[in-house]
Amino acid sequence: MKTGNSYDMRVEPQEVDFTLRCKTAAMCNNILNIAGTDAQRNGFGVDTLMRNNCSWVLSRFAVEFDSLPMQFTTFSIRTWVNYDGRLLSTRNFELTDAEGNVFGRSVSQWAMINFETRRPTDLNELAECYTSILSDEEPPCERPRKLFPIEPSQTMEHRIVYSDIDFNRHVNTLRYIDMMTDMLPIEFFAHPRPIRLDFHFVKEARYGQSLVVGMALQENGALFEIKSDDGAAVCRASFQWR
Amino acid sequence: MKTGNSYDMRVEPQEVDFTLRCKTAAMCNNILNIAGTDAQRNGFGVDTLMRNNCSWVLSRFAVEFDSLPMQFTTFSIRTWVNYDGRLLSTRNFELTDAEGNVFGRSVSQWAMINFETRRPTDLNELAECYTSILSDEEPPCERPRKLFPIEPSQTMEHRIVYSDIDFNRHVNTLRYIDMMTDMLPIEFFAHPRPIRLDFHFVKEARYGQSLVVGMALQENGALFEIKSDDGAAVCRASFQWR
Repeated sequence: MKTGNSYDMRVEPQEVDFTLRCKTAAMCNNILNIAGTDAQRNGFGVDTLMRNNCSWVLSRFAVEFDSLPMQFTTFSIRTWVNYDGRLLSTRNFELTDAEGNVFGRSVSQWAMINFETRRPTDLNELAECYTSILSDEEPPCERPRKLFPIEPSQTMEHRIVYSDIDFNRHVNTLRYIDMMTDMLPIEFFAHPRPIRLDFHFVKEARYGQSLVVGMALQENGALFEIKSDDGAAVCRASFQWR
Repeated sequence: MKTGNSYDMRVEPQEVDFTLRCKTAAMCNNILNIAGTDAQRNGFGVDTLMRNNCSWVLSRFAVEFDSLPMQFTTFSIRTWVNYDGRLLSTRNFELTDAEGNVFGRSVSQWAMINFETRRPTDLNELAECYTSILSDEEPPCERPRKLFPIEPSQTMEHRIVYSDIDFNRHVNTLRYIDMMTDMLPIEFFAHPRPIRLDFHFVKEARYGQSLVVGMALQENGALFEIKSDDGAAVCRASFQWR
């Protein structure tokens, strides 16, 4: 049985690249924004959490795109939440085109962080509004994989600026995805292939810090590791073409 | 009489900064996206133009914000178009909060560019769908000002990457605004004041080029000039606090 809620979307002109297809980063951003919208609709959005000095923080994120839709194409994103223990919330997504074909799947894992302690908080504090929407429906694809340190063949420096940071004062997920896709050869985007992306957000990066984005290009994919100026890993990712 | 069309909006979490107010760049982006949405609704959007190998290109843009709304606040953007000769389309915007107070005004000037010649095309080619919506209502604020070369006191280099470019293969307007706001001292955003911004887009910048963003900070504002690696001005702007 299909569970959760479904949201109608359209690929807007500002989301496409020169092929007129939706950018990978823009589609990931749509998925993450729907997570926020659906959480708010169910009573556990950032608006509610912030009143208790908490916020959602994305820990791991996996996305599979068979293809990406063209400008002005309509599609829908369905999302549902699984029970995954008291400290991690697993939110799933299925992307379907106007003809009813599934073209994308995603599994995201979130922690509820307390602003003062910067530590994860027990999800049971969300009480009924959270537990009442939990679904038994399985994730639509493999959960986010564990990712390890890499030996980069290319690196790029990035000083964290105002436009990189979000309401939490740390770097926006979309900007990390941009930093990674910007290191790939541009030819890659001219002939897109089915792709699986895994992200592992290790540590917050903040305004004023500098980042080093490392990439190890492989035959059928690329591995990324972003480190802050103190050498600590901030974010790791794997892009795998199929 | 109020003319044009009005669009209901809401400040989304991904649009706010650490003060939980909508970012200046995000609000400018909303205004420009509404320009596209309204043009499409009236039959002269980029979808129609691209069939004739043309596209809209933003030439000049002025925005005034008395204040910027907080996260989850609803507001509306009303837009109308004036006749401004055969080569420039003037599109106006008025931003109103839920209580009916106007908090923002904008005037934008657009050219219709032919992809092959890269030259402006006669707007009369849009025929009835364009002329029928032209309004006599005056712009809500001073039109975009003429901007001149500057002597920057600070500069920042920026190599143009994949995530900077749009479907036209040139740098997205939002990214120019980001590059400029990112040079301002972060304290500026902690205590926002009423602001007027003027932008003058001189020349397209393309993937692979490098840009130098120059800023001259003044007592009550800042002047910007972005140049490409050949020394040519790409974009100029003036930010004026009130």
